[in-house]
Amino acid sequence: MRLRNKPWAAELIENHPEVVESDPQKWKGKWTERFEKTSPLFVEVGTGKGQFVSRMAAAYPNTNFIGVEKYESVLVTGVQRVIEEPKSNLLFLQEDVHNITDFFSEGEVDRLYINFTDPWPKNKHAKRRLTHESFLKKYDEILTDTGEIHFKTDNQGLFEYSLKSFTHYGLKLKNVSLDLHSSDMEDNIMTEYEEKFSSKGMRIFRVEAYR
Amino acid sequence: MRLRNKPWAAELIENHPEVVESDPQKWKGKWTERFEKTSPLFVEVGTGKGQFVSRMAAAYPNTNFIGVEKYESVLVTGVQRVIEEPKSNLLFLQEDVHNITDFFSEGEVDRLYINFTDPWPKNKHAKRRLTHESFLKKYDEILTDTGEIHFKTDNQGLFEYSLKSFTHYGLKLKNVSLDLHSSDMEDNIMTEYEEKFSSKGMRIFRVEAYR
Ligand SMILES: C[S@@+](CC[C@H](N)C(=O)[O-])C[C@H]1O[C@@H](n2cnc3c(N)ncnc32)[C@H](O)[C@@H]1O
Ligand SMILES: C[S@@+](CC[C@H](N)C(=O)[O-])C[C@H]1O[C@@H](n2cnc3c(N)ncnc32)[C@H](O)[C@@H]1O
Repeated sequence: MRLRNKPWAAELIENHPEVVESDPQKWKGKWTERFEKTSPLFVEVGTGKGQFVSRMAAAYPNTNFIGVEKYESVLVTGVQRVIEEPKSNLLFLQEDVHNITDFFSEGEVDRLYINFTDPWPKNKHAKRRLTHESFLKKYDEILTDTGEIHFKTDNQGLFEYSLKSFTHYGLKLKNVSLDLHSSDMEDNIMTEYEEKFSSKGMRIFRVEAYR
Repeated sequence: MRLRNKPWAAELIENHPEVVESDPQKWKGKWTERFEKTSPLFVEVGTGKGQFVSRMAAAYPNTNFIGVEKYESVLVTGVQRVIEEPKSNLLFLQEDVHNITDFFSEGEVDRLYINFTDPWPKNKHAKRRLTHESFLKKYDEILTDTGEIHFKTDNQGLFEYSLKSFTHYGLKLKNVSLDLHSSDMEDNIMTEYEEKFSSKGMRIFRVEAYR
């Protein structure tokens, strides 16, 4: 994701603590209290501009959503959208996924979404992939026993790698789709990258990993 | 695979017990004695006309190969080929894979190949797929602890199903390829179906499953 120079982004994010929680450590283990309703908690890592979580939050009012994105210059677009159309079941964190276990306690998350995450094609960068074993270990910690990881990507190499990584870690796979947009995909909510890539006719891969 | 009427096929197979072992139960647990050399044992189920195992046997003289095929009308082509070019490390069984545990004892097989097996696309026929749980159970029994299942197919639905089936059974995945012929696939030996489908530009899927 290209980073634009947006000096006002940090300020806007700071001025909207109802949309971007600036002290996520504080809510570790009690996110339910931070939301209006007691609901399952679904987290998207690398949420980008947040289109996916925003639409999910609108479609599933009885689920709480949190989108985690490192860069304010990207996240700010999602924040603007939520300021215009407030959603009591959606929050953003401007944080690095590396620190995710600082924000969520053991078994606090019911589902984790990873969508079109950076592929880092070089082997020496494998550790940066959000499906690398070191990340899976963190997700495993914060997910409930029946928690699931839902993963979508256009990148074949990343998908191949991730199937290996998930199963090597001991996760099982279900609802595998090797061409999502040619399958009967009821309820699929598209991310920004997904719209871009699928409109170019690119194949979208999808899988769910579980214990 | 279309079945042609070949009344001579049964006779030819019967007349060549050095190529097609007619009493595989007899060798259960001692296949090593049936071959010239003591070598790892690799088995292909649904071997068809046997091009893959024949070429593998030629390429890997220090491995023993067995191809299992139900229909004599198909297998006979492979048998003719081996009669012309004898291979001391290759045997065929004209048998149903359902009975595979009758022919191999626990941990006797080092690797199992499943290539372009019939997809049986209807859910009600899932049990007939050679990657169905009931077959995995049998493979699991006859494979060594470090044994592997190597699977190739052109059929997307069957591949999606098989990833689920392998991992649900508790197997891990490695060397996943979602487009084998566009990847750096050193040493790939093509089956008959693979040649046919890949020459039409169809994508070939491949994966290795292990404990
Ligand atoms: C390629 S974009 C995809 C955005 C969105 N999920 C979509 O599908 O349209 C990946 C996003 O993940 C973010 N990201 C990558 N690694 C991250 C990390 N360790 N922590 C937080 N965000 C990360 C990037 O900043 C980028 O915005
Ligand atoms: C589609 S063909 C593929 C042949 C070959 N493996 C290839 O890739 O060219 C599948 C073969 O598997 C055989 N087969 C299917 N189920 C079988 C079973 N239960 N036992 C033995 N052979 C079987 C069929 O008879 C057929 O010849």
